[in-house]
Amino acid sequence: MQVLQNTTREKATLPGIEHLTLAGRAQGLSRLSVWSQSMAPGCATPPHQHDCEEVVLVLEGSGEVHIDGKVVAFGPDCTLVLPPNVAHQIVNTGSTALRTVAAFSATPVGTFLPGGEPLELPWAS
Amino acid sequence: MQVLQNTTREKATLPGIEHLTLAGRAQGLSRLSVWSQSMAPGCATPPHQHDCEEVVLVLEGSGEVHIDGKVVAFGPDCTLVLPPNVAHQIVNTGSTALRTVAAFSATPVGTFLPGGEPLELPWAS
Repeated sequence: MQVLQNTTREKATLPGIEHLTLAGRAQGLSRLSVWSQSMAPGCATPPHQHDCEEVVLVLEGSGEVHIDGKVVAFGPDCTLVLPPNVAHQIVNTGSTALRTVAAFSATPVGTFLPGGEPLELPWAS
Repeated sequence: MQVLQNTTREKATLPGIEHLTLAGRAQGLSRLSVWSQSMAPGCATPPHQHDCEEVVLVLEGSGEVHIDGKVVAFGPDCTLVLPPNVAHQIVNTGSTALRTVAAFSATPVGTFLPGGEPLELPWAS
C-alpha cells in the first residue's frame, strides 16, 4: 500500500495541459491507471483514442467532448464514460481551468491518433 | 459515450458515508468502476477487501488507512494505492467531510470482509 502526496510530485505538460499520473504501473498496478489533469481555457487535447475503457470526472470547469461526429457539452461535476478505441477530443470552452481525474482499465494506457498511429505522451501512464 | 450530471443522480448510503457510483457495469463498462464518496467526521468504512486493484484520490479532508497492522495518515490531495485482496479500513480522523474518488480495475467490484465473506453493499458497482 502506498500513500502519495500529490503536491510534491513532478508534473508533466503538453501545450495548455498540466498532467500528473496519480497511479499506474510505476506504483505497482497492472490493470488500472489514474490521471489528474488541468487544462487552460481555450486549450484542447489532440484528437486521440485509447485501447481501454476510460472514465473522466470533471472536478472544475466546463468544456466539450468531440466524438463520433458529435459535440457534447459538459460542466463541473459531470462524468464522461468513453468507450475503447473511439477517437475523442476534450476542449476547455470555459473561462477557467478544466480540472479532471481520468481512470483507465489498463496500465500503461495505449494512446493513439485517430488513424491508429501511436501517440507518444510525455508521461508514464 | 455518455455524459452524466452527477448532481442529479441518486446516491446510496452506509452509516456516515454518502456514495455515488460514477461509472461501472450499468454505464456499459466491463473492466473499470469509479466511485465518489463523502464520509462524515469520526466515521469509517468497515474493514474490507476487494478482488481488484484500487486507487483512492483524496479530494478534501484527512484520515487514516488501517492495513496490514499499520496505520498510515493522509491529508487532502493524496493518492492511496491499495493492492487486491488485502483488508483495509479508511477512517475520517478530521473535522470536515472526507471526500474521495476511488477507481477499481473491475466492475462489479467484489467486496469482502477480512475473513473472505462477501460484503453486500447498497449500491451497484
